[in-house]
Amino acid sequence: MAKSADRYFLPDTQKIVEKGFDPEHALVSESIFSLANEHMGVRGYFEEGGGPSLRGCYLGGVYETAPHRPESEYRGFVDRTHYMVTAADCLRVTLAVGGEKLDLSACAFRDFTRVLELRTGLLTRSFLWQTRNAGRVEVRFERLLGMERPELLAQRLTLCALDRDAEVTLAFAVDGNMVHSATGQCLWNETGERLAENALELRTATTGITVRYTLLVAGPGEKTRERGFRTITESRRFTLAKGKETAAERVTAVQVAYPGEALAPSPAFAAFDALLAENTRHWRAFWDACDVTVEGDAEQQQGIRYCLFQLHSTYRGLDARNNIGAKGLTGEAYSGHAFWDTETYCLPFYLFSDTKAARNLLMYRYRALPMARERAAAMDLAGACYPVATLDGTEACTLWQHSSLQMQPSTAVAYAVETYARLTGDEAFLRREGAEMLCEIARYVLSRGEWNQHGFGFYGVMGPDEFHMMVSNDFYTNFMGKKTLLQAADTVERLAGSERAALARKIALKPEEPAAWRRAAEKMIFLRRADGVYEQHEGYFNLPHTNIRDIPATEFPLYEHWSYDRIYRSDMLKQPDVLMAMYLHPEDFSAEEIAANYAYYEPRCVHESSLSPSVHAILAGALGRRGEAARLFGFAVRLDLDNYNRNTCEGLHLSSAAAAWVTMTECFGGLRFDGDTLRLAPWLAEGWKRFGFSLRVRGSLLRVSVQTGGVTLACGGKPIVLTLYGETLTVGETPVTRPKEG
Amino acid sequence: MAKSADRYFLPDTQKIVEKGFDPEHALVSESIFSLANEHMGVRGYFEEGGGPSLRGCYLGGVYETAPHRPESEYRGFVDRTHYMVTAADCLRVTLAVGGEKLDLSACAFRDFTRVLELRTGLLTRSFLWQTRNAGRVEVRFERLLGMERPELLAQRLTLCALDRDAEVTLAFAVDGNMVHSATGQCLWNETGERLAENALELRTATTGITVRYTLLVAGPGEKTRERGFRTITESRRFTLAKGKETAAERVTAVQVAYPGEALAPSPAFAAFDALLAENTRHWRAFWDACDVTVEGDAEQQQGIRYCLFQLHSTYRGLDARNNIGAKGLTGEAYSGHAFWDTETYCLPFYLFSDTKAARNLLMYRYRALPMARERAAAMDLAGACYPVATLDGTEACTLWQHSSLQMQPSTAVAYAVETYARLTGDEAFLRREGAEMLCEIARYVLSRGEWNQHGFGFYGVMGPDEFHMMVSNDFYTNFMGKKTLLQAADTVERLAGSERAALARKIALKPEEPAAWRRAAEKMIFLRRADGVYEQHEGYFNLPHTNIRDIPATEFPLYEHWSYDRIYRSDMLKQPDVLMAMYLHPEDFSAEEIAANYAYYEPRCVHESSLSPSVHAILAGALGRRGEAARLFGFAVRLDLDNYNRNTCEGLHLSSAAAAWVTMTECFGGLRFDGDTLRLAPWLAEGWKRFGFSLRVRGSLLRVSVQTGGVTLACGGKPIVLTLYGETLTVGETPVTRPKEG
Repeated sequence: MAKSADRYFLPDTQKIVEKGFDPEHALVSESIFSLANEHMGVRGYFEEGGGPSLRGCYLGGVYETAPHRPESEYRGFVDRTHYMVTAADCLRVTLAVGGEKLDLSACAFRDFTRVLELRTGLLTRSFLWQTRNAGRVEVRFERLLGMERPELLAQRLTLCALDRDAEVTLAFAVDGNMVHSATGQCLWNETGERLAENALELRTATTGITVRYTLLVAGPGEKTRERGFRTITESRRFTLAKGKETAAERVTAVQVAYPGEALAPSPAFAAFDALLAENTRHWRAFWDACDVTVEGDAEQQQGIRYCLFQLHSTYRGLDARNNIGAKGLTGEAYSGHAFWDTETYCLPFYLFSDTKAARNLLMYRYRALPMARERAAAMDLAGACYPVATLDGTEACTLWQHSSLQMQPSTAVAYAVETYARLTGDEAFLRREGAEMLCEIARYVLSRGEWNQHGFGFYGVMGPDEFHMMVSNDFYTNFMGKKTLLQAADTVERLAGSERAALARKIALKPEEPAAWRRAAEKMIFLRRADGVYEQHEGYFNLPHTNIRDIPATEFPLYEHWSYDRIYRSDMLKQPDVLMAMYLHPEDFSAEEIAANYAYYEPRCVHESSLSPSVHAILAGALGRRGEAARLFGFAVRLDLDNYNRNTCEGLHLSSAAAAWVTMTECFGGLRFDGDTLRLAPWLAEGWKRFGFSLRVRGSLLRVSVQTGGVTLACGGKPIVLTLYGETLTVGETPVTRPKEG
Repeated sequence: MAKSADRYFLPDTQKIVEKGFDPEHALVSESIFSLANEHMGVRGYFEEGGGPSLRGCYLGGVYETAPHRPESEYRGFVDRTHYMVTAADCLRVTLAVGGEKLDLSACAFRDFTRVLELRTGLLTRSFLWQTRNAGRVEVRFERLLGMERPELLAQRLTLCALDRDAEVTLAFAVDGNMVHSATGQCLWNETGERLAENALELRTATTGITVRYTLLVAGPGEKTRERGFRTITESRRFTLAKGKETAAERVTAVQVAYPGEALAPSPAFAAFDALLAENTRHWRAFWDACDVTVEGDAEQQQGIRYCLFQLHSTYRGLDARNNIGAKGLTGEAYSGHAFWDTETYCLPFYLFSDTKAARNLLMYRYRALPMARERAAAMDLAGACYPVATLDGTEACTLWQHSSLQMQPSTAVAYAVETYARLTGDEAFLRREGAEMLCEIARYVLSRGEWNQHGFGFYGVMGPDEFHMMVSNDFYTNFMGKKTLLQAADTVERLAGSERAALARKIALKPEEPAAWRRAAEKMIFLRRADGVYEQHEGYFNLPHTNIRDIPATEFPLYEHWSYDRIYRSDMLKQPDVLMAMYLHPEDFSAEEIAANYAYYEPRCVHESSLSPSVHAILAGALGRRGEAARLFGFAVRLDLDNYNRNTCEGLHLSSAAAAWVTMTECFGGLRFDGDTLRLAPWLAEGWKRFGFSLRVRGSLLRVSVQTGGVTLACGGKPIVLTLYGETLTVGETPVTRPKEG
């Protein structure tokens, strides 16, 4: 299948720019111009409404639960789900000039421009409004989300009448009547507390989370305040003097309290320019440490910066209750749920940029251990089974074929524990929380598997390749199961006597358990052909062949165009399975094996997961298939900007943004961190003049710059020992340059 | 797993007798004492209420539809289901004597006896009521369903005061407020028509089916009529004279009109004794032609007669809109749906007893052909795919893993067409309706399969053994697929030129299609070990072994006690799959093959389907494993009477009743009809003195009687050519006796 770009935004290495407004791209633009600061997120909708929109504000960690009546009430089926709730609209503006209400789907306008500044997080929309009664009026909306004061969402409206004085009425509202579109309901209730005139308090129906919105306005004209059902409004009426730029600002403070917590006092008004200055400082520090530069390809430069911008906006470890939803805080799709993508694709970015955020991601899973234990028990299993999709740690995925058959969320947590501990050296975490998680996951893994005459394996599972369900001895599942079992056994055995005793007390660990894990790991079943190709699962090689190039582009995504069961009958892959294991653990496979498996499986993969191209790019790069690697990276790095999967309208692919960073560093940077020493082997894709990135490693900041002439490394902080093209180097503050290879 | 009997009813070869009332057996008794006449069915509930009950009247072919929101909206998922609706209660009686209301859960009583007369269909319940104020009163309730006048449900209440005169108030009601317990709703609406005082008209909400109930009462005292919401009542008040039996009777006429049909005039009252006499004649004729006799084992005699009684009650081809629900008209479980059991287990009984009823079962499927075509198209397939569960021909099964993966409903229809045509010689049916069904099913089968390097097969299916899902090259599916393809090709090729042209016009049959069916059939994949054991599906032999004898009896049924996915991970079978194919087509397998497969698969089967023991019994009998055959038959023939599966409370297992007849004739009678000639090879199970059954074959009635001394055959009507123990005989009216073999 050929993915194709739907190029719409202008190329610019520091901005996303939309010139002119095309209603057919309205929803994609709305997603692309989303802002977030982990505490909250807003889609890039028009303040005044009008036209197609999935208008939505979302709050990290604020959700509702819902009973789920499964088709049949079998044991182990999920009977309660939960979803991120659509919060109050905090940006609503009603504007009338000369008695005409602004609505771009009805009014005359030109020079429409929308700009997202990646360096500051400022979103600006401006146009010239040809009013019916008051001549031409320049309109500019600006907004930003406080990076340093996450509760604040700031908005500025600037007007300038070009032809004559004009009468303006303007209303800023907080509207709590937003409907969660998947359920068609607004479940918010007003708390009934006595409140200040400019405050609104709403509570979720099922989870009892309270949100207070405080509406703070500064601007011309006389203030009128109104309170309606789940709504507060502040209005102004004034005369706009011809030729004079006039601005009105509002800040909405959004405070959240979980059951049992008290809300802090409402914050005071903060000026837009002051918040912008704070944000500019915040983003400057971020870019200084985390920027990835590509000279010679403005589109890829724009793409990777956009990915980093959205990733940092979505998650930076502010609150260990938060995780990284598949769509971040940019849409209702996937209900805000986090998947195993967090550990598999997102974690490396945080490991190399913000150890505290990485640790918070792990602590999120540690806090969810009791729920994972309950889930395992519900499936008649031991230990802890992590959910396929979750906000609060319980399983939210109501498709039993995923929630009951997929082991990868659990083995991904084990992988994350191990990688985090090795890269950060956080031994204290490994020995306490890490060891506890590892043991519980190993127990689950052991109890989910079975012995037969050939050894140990897993039956009736679904691996990462979700086009094959209820399979036996899936390569990825067996391989990661083996890794998890060994890692748990190793970790327990490395514990000091007192630590081991404490763990044994805490989780009733029997002395013989690690040996049982090791036995199963050693006898794990792998199906390998003489040529080194691993069979994805038992019987895979006998499956009928689908030539995926024969499938018309109009039939993608297949889930929408094909009967469900039809997808499961051939050797076609949704996303890599064998290759995924090789990507996560390259140290376990020879280059020849990787090459043979890549050659076999890549042509069978339709990349129906947005993350699939990245994994292929990284392996292709390592195999010297550089043209292919660059082509696959092209999808990954502009997946949303160019709407490759044609579903950016629903929200951004956050884990794919992380995967783009991973591809940059691992494919083009040749970064490997599977052993004790960091390895680098950078190269320049065709057309690139220079390529640079930074890695934070145990407090030091390593800067890597690659150009035709050579590779330059420098390290702020403690020197780092690494290998470059196999040569061991100690890199300190003084830049080291070596010739570029390959 | 050892199945165990819960013996409760007294042994009697012509009756089912309950002496004394045990509330813990209330629901089982209520199922066992169900009556039906195809038009309607009533559970054996207490007329006056009280105690645990699944009070329910059901009407054949009267149902509601309901939208079904699947977990996810994938293509091919069923989004509308339907279910048999609980009709108005037509037996409700309120009785008070001396001011005390009858309620056996509160009143004092003794000598409780309930009797179902299998020879007449009369159900009687009697007891001595020790009233609080009026001394002892003998109470007898009788009921019957008109076999000759199916609209009539008759009821008689006889009272006798033993100690003194007593004041009686008595009300007969038709109560349309019955709740469908699965949905918790009563969807009936009154039609609002002008009605006679004693009539009630209710209409289904979604299907617009109208039901008129006419309440006809005869008895002492003055009549009072009342009409309430969805209810009509007629009351009597009288003095019961000491020592004098006093009876009141009511008939409820239940008439049904589908949308566009008009209701016939209400029938007149009919006396209970007149109806009983009609029924007695009806049943006498039935037993004369269909009785199966077992001398030497009263329990098995009772069991097989009970099975035949319920089978004939449930279905005799009155209306081609009707089919045989898994629970008949005896409970809400399975929503009244018919399954492939109809063609596989029930059809043989009708083929050998009532050809018209058998033809109606086939016409039911022919009428459903358009719905089967739509279902195939919804799954991106050609031809016609018959539903897993249905009342109206559309797919009602909302579990995609069944409705999308199971091909056996369709291949069973093909099997039924072929068997019906061969046994009845109804060539006209075969050449028109039969050929059309066969071709459409063959198209579906071909489009559902795939070619690979090994040949043709089916991928991602679920065979009869529902403990293995999403498997490839399931033996049963491949085998029956092959049979269907060949049968369709053969049938088309046997058609005369004009018939073939008419068929080709009707279904756009291309000349090359039969050859394509034949090619796929010839290259069908079968996985056979050197020792003749067929692998149930690819990879089955590699599955971990479960020793089913190690599973505690308390864990059955497994679906209720095990996590759903846990059931699917081992070599344990729910019901036979390879053996099922061998049972349906013994002519295709050698005795050695059948023996090898029986020996391999039988110990792996938990018989979680109530039909499983019958198939095993028949094969065991043929293999000379006679003790085992008799033991398995023991479950089948008293499955409900002894509540072997502990779920008779929900309703009777109608197809299992049919399977008991099949086991009788095929296992003990050695009946085979897979070739051109009927074959018999009867034997006597241990303890049996005599065993007899009849078969109607092309209008003649063959009577078979087996005793130690020999086998006696006689035939009313045209003589029949058959083989007995391999010897070809022509059997006419003069009995032929041959020595019993074996």
